[in-house]
Amino acid sequence: MMAPDTIPFEARLEARAEQVEALLRRLLDDRLLPGEIARPQQLFSAMRHGVLNGGKRLRPFLVLESAALFEADAEAALRVAAALECVHCYSLIHDDLPAMDDDDLRRGQPTVHKAFDEASAILAGDSLLTYAFDILADTATALPAERKLALVLGLARAAGPGGMAGGQALDLEAERSSPDEAGIIRLQAMKTGALIRYACEAGAILAGAQEEDRERLAEFGSAIGLAFQLADDLLDLTADAETMGKATGKDAAAGKATLAALHGIDWTRAQLRGLVAQAHALLEPYGERADLLRQAASFIAERSK
Amino acid sequence: MMAPDTIPFEARLEARAEQVEALLRRLLDDRLLPGEIARPQQLFSAMRHGVLNGGKRLRPFLVLESAALFEADAEAALRVAAALECVHCYSLIHDDLPAMDDDDLRRGQPTVHKAFDEASAILAGDSLLTYAFDILADTATALPAERKLALVLGLARAAGPGGMAGGQALDLEAERSSPDEAGIIRLQAMKTGALIRYACEAGAILAGAQEEDRERLAEFGSAIGLAFQLADDLLDLTADAETMGKATGKDAAAGKATLAALHGIDWTRAQLRGLVAQAHALLEPYGERADLLRQAASFIAERSK
Repeated sequence: MMAPDTIPFEARLEARAEQVEALLRRLLDDRLLPGEIARPQQLFSAMRHGVLNGGKRLRPFLVLESAALFEADAEAALRVAAALECVHCYSLIHDDLPAMDDDDLRRGQPTVHKAFDEASAILAGDSLLTYAFDILADTATALPAERKLALVLGLARAAGPGGMAGGQALDLEAERSSPDEAGIIRLQAMKTGALIRYACEAGAILAGAQEEDRERLAEFGSAIGLAFQLADDLLDLTADAETMGKATGKDAAAGKATLAALHGIDWTRAQLRGLVAQAHALLEPYGERADLLRQAASFIAERSK
Repeated sequence: MMAPDTIPFEARLEARAEQVEALLRRLLDDRLLPGEIARPQQLFSAMRHGVLNGGKRLRPFLVLESAALFEADAEAALRVAAALECVHCYSLIHDDLPAMDDDDLRRGQPTVHKAFDEASAILAGDSLLTYAFDILADTATALPAERKLALVLGLARAAGPGGMAGGQALDLEAERSSPDEAGIIRLQAMKTGALIRYACEAGAILAGAQEEDRERLAEFGSAIGLAFQLADDLLDLTADAETMGKATGKDAAAGKATLAALHGIDWTRAQLRGLVAQAHALLEPYGERADLLRQAASFIAERSK
């Protein structure tokens, strides 16, 4: 059941997604950048397949709305949002590979290694990851050099072996080693949390906001990142394959422990309410200017797909 | 047969390799950086396996010597050299995967996916690529923000879909499509050339050298990058497996066209001499201060493994 006041939020989410997709389509077209020798057709087709797939663009939304909160340059924010989405999509392409989670479908469409082949999927992921740093550092991202560098460093650390990639490594190990609760929390803070945290922090970096605001937005991102994961685990426990457009119950089948599976549905729902309250409290200083970020926190905790 | 005047060069190459390896060992140890939540053991083991493998560290050497030519900060140059080597090693780990070139051995040791598993090899490569941008952008790389950004952008463009990753994609296609001579040259300029070009250019960027010097070093890099590839093709045609420590004659077996195979050994040797002369001519303005780079050009063209 959708509460009436989330309807304008969803319209806003869609409008933001369209903005980001228009830019991604342009960044992934056939025009060469200076220093590029050629853009191999099949590689760019595979990259587009992995990116222009109708995603909700939640991470870009968080970049754009946190940037708007601090009145950052909107064009630059859009490029940062697109770079982040390239990193998110690379991670999905590689996670779907046979050697990793071995998924054939994503959003009801064949995954990149099914639509193309494994080599193309590996290279498309590698390319999207590398291209994200190109997008940030390019002169077209009109920001002071110090801020662009902070964005590069933040993205590298959120996505790298001490962040998202490390979380995926721990997740694969978890199938064998059954981590304890602290281990599951750490794994998820890395695998899904780090990039969502960065998405929120990036808005403050873009605007050159005070260190205190940057830290506050990062904490907001951590809270909704954890909520995102708990909501996902809950869906894995309760939803059917049709709603999700991908295989469900898969975590349990793979023997992967989740907090939701460990503590049950009621506990998880209570945790989600607590995280949303915490996220909302962090936005207190910004008054109603932060309403869209507040709604994003609620949307993430309550989403049904 | 080794000419006597290359002996001091090889000693210098080894000394530089030791410097870079000491830093790489430190960068890949278990200490967390700010913002990192954990360093998964198996992942970091796989990363170290892929990096600390006794490579010649030719690309780092080029960074360090081109940086020294322009009197850049030596500590910063070492970090840039290490970042570049992480990108080179990521590319080897992914190229060796079963879905790509399917190699079990590298330098006589099991490749990362053989020593660990495919998922670990994919993630170790992803992690090294991401970590390279972390190393460049980190405050420990003590350079003006503008130069660090130029280094990030240059690396992203050299390694990305319009550079190295794109070249690997074209190389895989080449097994099916038999590119013409122009196609082979383009493929190799991307696959191996772009990163070697960047290695030489990076020294000029590090030092904040004039645009003209930067362009000159980049062209020097392009010339020796092409020489590197021709020498490699020649070895593939002539050397035996023992000398190389890996399977040879493989390109021909896979139906991959190379310039050396197309034109023969004598033509290739003549081309190599021409490229070395061209590379040496580009260094003319720097006099004997560029002697080590000159020797590097000769070494690359004449190497026997």
